[in-house]
Amino acid sequence: MTWLDLPEDSVFGLANLPYGVFSRPGQEPRVGIAVGSSVLDVGTLAEAAGAAFAPVLWGPSLNPFLAAGRETWSLVREKVTEWLSDEAHRDLVTPHLVPLAEVQLHLPFEVADYVDFYSNEHHAVNAGTIFRLADDATDALTPNWKHLPIGYHGRAGTVVVSGTPIVRPSGQRKPRNEEKPTYGPSLRLDIEAEVGFVVGTPSKLGEQVGVGAFEDHVFGVCLVNDWSARDIQAWEYQPLGPFLGKSFATSVSPWIVPLEALQHARVAPPPQDPEPLPYLLGDTHWGLDLGMEIRVNGHVVSRPPFATQYWTAAQQLAHLTVNGASLRTGDLYASGTVSGPEKDQRGSLLELSWGGREPFDLPDGSQRTFLEDGDEVIITATAPGPDGARIGFGEVAGRVVPAVTEEK
Amino acid sequence: MTWLDLPEDSVFGLANLPYGVFSRPGQEPRVGIAVGSSVLDVGTLAEAAGAAFAPVLWGPSLNPFLAAGRETWSLVREKVTEWLSDEAHRDLVTPHLVPLAEVQLHLPFEVADYVDFYSNEHHAVNAGTIFRLADDATDALTPNWKHLPIGYHGRAGTVVVSGTPIVRPSGQRKPRNEEKPTYGPSLRLDIEAEVGFVVGTPSKLGEQVGVGAFEDHVFGVCLVNDWSARDIQAWEYQPLGPFLGKSFATSVSPWIVPLEALQHARVAPPPQDPEPLPYLLGDTHWGLDLGMEIRVNGHVVSRPPFATQYWTAAQQLAHLTVNGASLRTGDLYASGTVSGPEKDQRGSLLELSWGGREPFDLPDGSQRTFLEDGDEVIITATAPGPDGARIGFGEVAGRVVPAVTEEK
Repeated sequence: MTWLDLPEDSVFGLANLPYGVFSRPGQEPRVGIAVGSSVLDVGTLAEAAGAAFAPVLWGPSLNPFLAAGRETWSLVREKVTEWLSDEAHRDLVTPHLVPLAEVQLHLPFEVADYVDFYSNEHHAVNAGTIFRLADDATDALTPNWKHLPIGYHGRAGTVVVSGTPIVRPSGQRKPRNEEKPTYGPSLRLDIEAEVGFVVGTPSKLGEQVGVGAFEDHVFGVCLVNDWSARDIQAWEYQPLGPFLGKSFATSVSPWIVPLEALQHARVAPPPQDPEPLPYLLGDTHWGLDLGMEIRVNGHVVSRPPFATQYWTAAQQLAHLTVNGASLRTGDLYASGTVSGPEKDQRGSLLELSWGGREPFDLPDGSQRTFLEDGDEVIITATAPGPDGARIGFGEVAGRVVPAVTEEK
Repeated sequence: MTWLDLPEDSVFGLANLPYGVFSRPGQEPRVGIAVGSSVLDVGTLAEAAGAAFAPVLWGPSLNPFLAAGRETWSLVREKVTEWLSDEAHRDLVTPHLVPLAEVQLHLPFEVADYVDFYSNEHHAVNAGTIFRLADDATDALTPNWKHLPIGYHGRAGTVVVSGTPIVRPSGQRKPRNEEKPTYGPSLRLDIEAEVGFVVGTPSKLGEQVGVGAFEDHVFGVCLVNDWSARDIQAWEYQPLGPFLGKSFATSVSPWIVPLEALQHARVAPPPQDPEPLPYLLGDTHWGLDLGMEIRVNGHVVSRPPFATQYWTAAQQLAHLTVNGASLRTGDLYASGTVSGPEKDQRGSLLELSWGGREPFDLPDGSQRTFLEDGDEVIITATAPGPDGARIGFGEVAGRVVPAVTEEK
């Protein structure tokens, strides 16, 4: 299968081949592919091999490769698979393998627009119950929830790569029992475990991208931690939605797993009732059976299942473009918080602590409602690959550092 | 004052010198400055003059110039003023003046993140009354409105230059008297007349940009038409804010007027009660006395005054970054719809037709609530300059073209 010395259970085996951007000390960032415990310096390898597609793999981001389109994505994948499978290429390839331990990983692509959806029913019901029933709403789900994948734009400029420290945000928050808002560091700093979809092929302004065109536009999948300051969010979000409660940072995993690597992870989309409007229907869309894991300071606090997500990624894309909004290479859209029906499958601390009212235990004896300074959160995921293999997504990690405290 | 043959009342006189990007047939887009009825090809002029700053003026967008920072902005302005004032430079400059009538104007900068505020009290009261009182809210303004400048992120990738046709967006909308949403072209296509602020100098993640640092980061001002599909917006916006009701297109004027040209347009910020939190206070912020005009098919339908805007642009920037969100070169943030207290000062058709319930007349005998296919909207503005001069902002124009009608 491969001449590489890969452990049988590697989640970065030949069935995966996720793309990222790496650098060695003193070198400029460049495109790489994770293989086992190495990074394949695929741009220089392609050049050495005289591959015509080499130039799209040069440079400090995936964007030229993403823009090259579906045929090129397949071609490069085919070629890399051949290089790593056929013993004959060992001497060609070996000089271009770099130990992962020796490299720094960078934000893999320049984010164009960032959209965050809200497409998980368990999460939406939980959040609606915690946030809005208290405001005398009559239902946890707003009336539109089952008719369209609700989404909003986030801040593309503050999407950061895994490992970037998260400065506790300051801002306005107004506790329910106080008259006026106060300024200060967020007291309810939270996470949202999400799955992100990365657009490669752009579309034209005024053009709709139907459910069936999903694979022509979306290259791959990453993990997203949509850090959220719940107190800031609660005070600001009416009537125009989340803003500063989210815009301080959104972390993504350093590896983008190609859709082509996820053929075996496809699952039937969940039944949708009521039936969505025709522009949201299609024969070709599917969910993805990602098993996610959230660790706080090394302890697993939740294992959200992505397979039961209500709206599929293809439906989200069709909705995003139904008004003629164009796509750009580097657009990122995230699933919304992934939660399962069980308590230990919830994708945010808001849900795990039920709005802060039910602290949960960490195995070290401490308790949490929201994040404390110094806490480290790591989200990982795997999905089924061929022949019992597992496809890994790497991790999206972040440690909370204290707020900039000066009053301005 | 100038050796140029400029009409006395030109709004593109030497007190203005706004920046844009233009091209002549067969030429690549390049940076230009509007002077009278000409565009100054300032990059090639600077090169011919041997100016050290010339390279930031080459290329197809203003971003390198914006990124160069406040000192460079001042230096270029000083030099251009000298070139256009002193007869001695006539022979140097003349070959670089191109008639405006011969050029195409392009999107002047690559938009990084786009934020839309909601900072005009008249508009917020009108919109709140029309949209939300009907939903049994108790007050037209949400409780947070006078404590912070409410804002949200829009779609940067669909910001287009004046003149770009606006395809009527399709999507879901649910009339109040119907059970289920339907798909189709928006029946309530609207405008929002706004003022945009363009960020030049970036800031670091985790760093706050105080009210007093506004002029270190913001280069200049443009006009914005934040096209809005009210029926799509009304159905989608709970709980996470506007999305497809806005993301199909946002038009900007082709000229960015430097803050330095607006010294005489500064007005005292309005009284704010309650007093905002300290991070929103400062001695150095001000409103801008822009007189705006909205024309539909050539007829003036409104003259919104920007001077009385509740939250100033410096306060908006301080709020946008109070959570440590970083700024990038090319960030655009818009004021929110500008409306005055009078009926003929309202900045949207939503307000002019009071939610569609009160059609208004056009002088050609036709009536409007919202926009019809073929309608052209043009927003212009001027501001006071020195010695009785007027500073012009050019125009942001757009014509509505019919929806892509196929059901998908």
